[in-house]
Amino acid sequence: MDEQAMRRCIERKRDGATLSAQEWDDIISAFMDDDVSEAQMAALCMACVWRGMSFDEAYALTRAMVESGQTIAFDVEHGIVVDKHSSGGVSDIVSLVAVPLAAACGARVAKLSGRALGHTGGTIDKLETIPGFNVALPIESFVKQVQQIGCAIAAQTQALVPADKRIYHLRDRTATVPSMGLIAASIVSKKIAGGAHAFVFDVKTGPGAMMQQPPQARELAQWLVEIAARFERRATAFVTDMSQPLGRCVGTGIEVVEAREFLRGNGDARAEELVLSIAGALVGEGGFDEPDALVREALSSGRAYEKFCEMIAAQGGDVAALEKMQPGAPLEVCAPQSGYLTAMDVVRLGNAGRALSAEDSLGGIEVAVRIGDYVEAGAPLVRAFGRDAHAAQPLAHAFTLSQAPVQAPPLLYDALCNAVVVKSRLAHADPAL
Amino acid sequence: MDEQAMRRCIERKRDGATLSAQEWDDIISAFMDDDVSEAQMAALCMACVWRGMSFDEAYALTRAMVESGQTIAFDVEHGIVVDKHSSGGVSDIVSLVAVPLAAACGARVAKLSGRALGHTGGTIDKLETIPGFNVALPIESFVKQVQQIGCAIAAQTQALVPADKRIYHLRDRTATVPSMGLIAASIVSKKIAGGAHAFVFDVKTGPGAMMQQPPQARELAQWLVEIAARFERRATAFVTDMSQPLGRCVGTGIEVVEAREFLRGNGDARAEELVLSIAGALVGEGGFDEPDALVREALSSGRAYEKFCEMIAAQGGDVAALEKMQPGAPLEVCAPQSGYLTAMDVVRLGNAGRALSAEDSLGGIEVAVRIGDYVEAGAPLVRAFGRDAHAAQPLAHAFTLSQAPVQAPPLLYDALCNAVVVKSRLAHADPAL
Repeated sequence: MDEQAMRRCIERKRDGATLSAQEWDDIISAFMDDDVSEAQMAALCMACVWRGMSFDEAYALTRAMVESGQTIAFDVEHGIVVDKHSSGGVSDIVSLVAVPLAAACGARVAKLSGRALGHTGGTIDKLETIPGFNVALPIESFVKQVQQIGCAIAAQTQALVPADKRIYHLRDRTATVPSMGLIAASIVSKKIAGGAHAFVFDVKTGPGAMMQQPPQARELAQWLVEIAARFERRATAFVTDMSQPLGRCVGTGIEVVEAREFLRGNGDARAEELVLSIAGALVGEGGFDEPDALVREALSSGRAYEKFCEMIAAQGGDVAALEKMQPGAPLEVCAPQSGYLTAMDVVRLGNAGRALSAEDSLGGIEVAVRIGDYVEAGAPLVRAFGRDAHAAQPLAHAFTLSQAPVQAPPLLYDALCNAVVVKSRLAHADPAL
Repeated sequence: MDEQAMRRCIERKRDGATLSAQEWDDIISAFMDDDVSEAQMAALCMACVWRGMSFDEAYALTRAMVESGQTIAFDVEHGIVVDKHSSGGVSDIVSLVAVPLAAACGARVAKLSGRALGHTGGTIDKLETIPGFNVALPIESFVKQVQQIGCAIAAQTQALVPADKRIYHLRDRTATVPSMGLIAASIVSKKIAGGAHAFVFDVKTGPGAMMQQPPQARELAQWLVEIAARFERRATAFVTDMSQPLGRCVGTGIEVVEAREFLRGNGDARAEELVLSIAGALVGEGGFDEPDALVREALSSGRAYEKFCEMIAAQGGDVAALEKMQPGAPLEVCAPQSGYLTAMDVVRLGNAGRALSAEDSLGGIEVAVRIGDYVEAGAPLVRAFGRDAHAAQPLAHAFTLSQAPVQAPPLLYDALCNAVVVKSRLAHADPAL
């Protein structure tokens, strides 16, 4: 595709037409070959934000992006491999704990993770606080570890879906992120290239999430399972709350400590509810019956914690050091008055956790309250850790206290599954595929 | 303005907000300083196509673009200077003839012209076919010539409105041309920088024009006179037909020949109707009473032709050579059947004229028929000139003949004037301006 042909594609998308699979293929190839400029791609992305995309277009774009780089392959004869994705949250410890938990049940979990983005944390940044832990696994080592111990968590490599990296960076600068089709293609392309046979998506919603309203989040969840279905991949998508941090701790190392304690049986009840659901879905997608019972048993027996330590050791991490990780004495941020907690500024809490942990790997914050709680004046709202803990004092303003009681928000809004669709597609699948 | 600030501007425009004058100023400065990338500017332009712009925004953008380069100044004490712009047509000989015609009436006309764009011709390309004619007048020579003989036609220099050049090129590649605000800012910024005190705009409409529908063209005409008014410049805008070529000839040198014959009293009736209107508006805006009578007299007396020759000589053109310019023997393209001419493919005729004149400065086509004419089978539709004249044979398909008679389309759809607005603005003008 040359500049003229790309201009015609932009024109048609601008005027509300849909582009063909061949056109999306050609656009991505030409963009990666620098035959299509960033300016043309930015204009096309804005036209997509304006006019939307069809499922067919998003699928075609996803496939073209997958084909822009290497892909990982897992031999399905050794068992189904599952992967998990979160759209980004604060105190989102799910990956750290659900991956070894599902593996402890026999599932094989190949998790490719990202770094922190905006106010939300990144699993890779968290794992790097464990001395020796190697996030940059070569593809062969990643595959081998999943076969041998049932799980691995590695950083996305540049070799997988390079088109997504370039386009995402461009969309970020050009304010063209909010398009369901573009977002879904970005997420699903990385999962497909990662080689798993089934996925579990966690789409966050609320003031701390990209999809602030539950209907938006539900729509994205539909896009994710629908596009996965077109690749003949089973997928479950949860729509979950991000009006407050999921767990208690916000930071990097401090979230690893929370994950460790969770797996030792000292988990926060709210975080546990979601972890069990997601781990259950991973185990279920992995082909096991009665996944919820398996997951509960793996957690209470301590086998999940053993799997966590095994994974860390397999990736070079120092388990003895992990067991000693402990933040220092906290500095408390207290409630200036009494009242019912009606809201938290999750973005501000996320940013505070990121800032404190950037200075000190065990720095961060622990949120002592939940929406709906009655808080007495002078009671702690936040415990801040790390060298700059005093900088957390203004976080008292991140909490809204009111005299009228409020209900705690739901945690799970919805769960969607494409299993039936994939099954019917597979039954009628084109033998050439 | 840095990348982050520009992203916020794109976001706001994407979400339907209007940007402030200060923001438009900062965007253009930063773009010219390469602090804002072409990708960001392309995304902003697409958001403008989507969300539209307010008059205030278009005015602010126009002013920021004017300030990106040099400007020409004419001392109003020596008389009002007028300028004329066409949105682009086929066989659009108006500038070639109306400029000397208005000057012959005493008006001072400082015309900055562009080159051919797409299927439409460019006055500069046409004038360059006159041996010796210099289109690249330095600003001082341009100003001096207007003072001395009353008119000059020169190519837009790189020094005027460099921001428009860069942005227009970007919009062309990224399919972000069709925004009233962006189009109006592009047109008016060049006129303001050109220094004239009053403008006459000719907005074409029809299948051969950028604004295909008359209501669109009328809307652009309104934008042009409104933005000119904000600069305290009087302006008249005509909305005129481009469902067929304006004159008879399409090419470069061949249009100069048609202009020469027009000024010698052998003009096409349809072209003459528009030329007299536009020249009349130039003379009227130039401060003369009874402009239409002045224009008719200047044409019939031969003084307009004398002014044409004087302008050509002043810009180094060889008038004797001009008088000898004559295309060779034509090759006729004839009607395959009889019928009423209901439509012409103006884009195709324009492209054919450009192609033939690119090979041979006196190459091109002469269109022998008008919409509404009854054409006998075998009668000429087109006479083709130049080395590749045989390539014009398929042009027979550019004409639609039907058995039912059709009415000739109107030539003048509308005329808008901002005189009252400017007068009231001037009366209440901020003394600081």
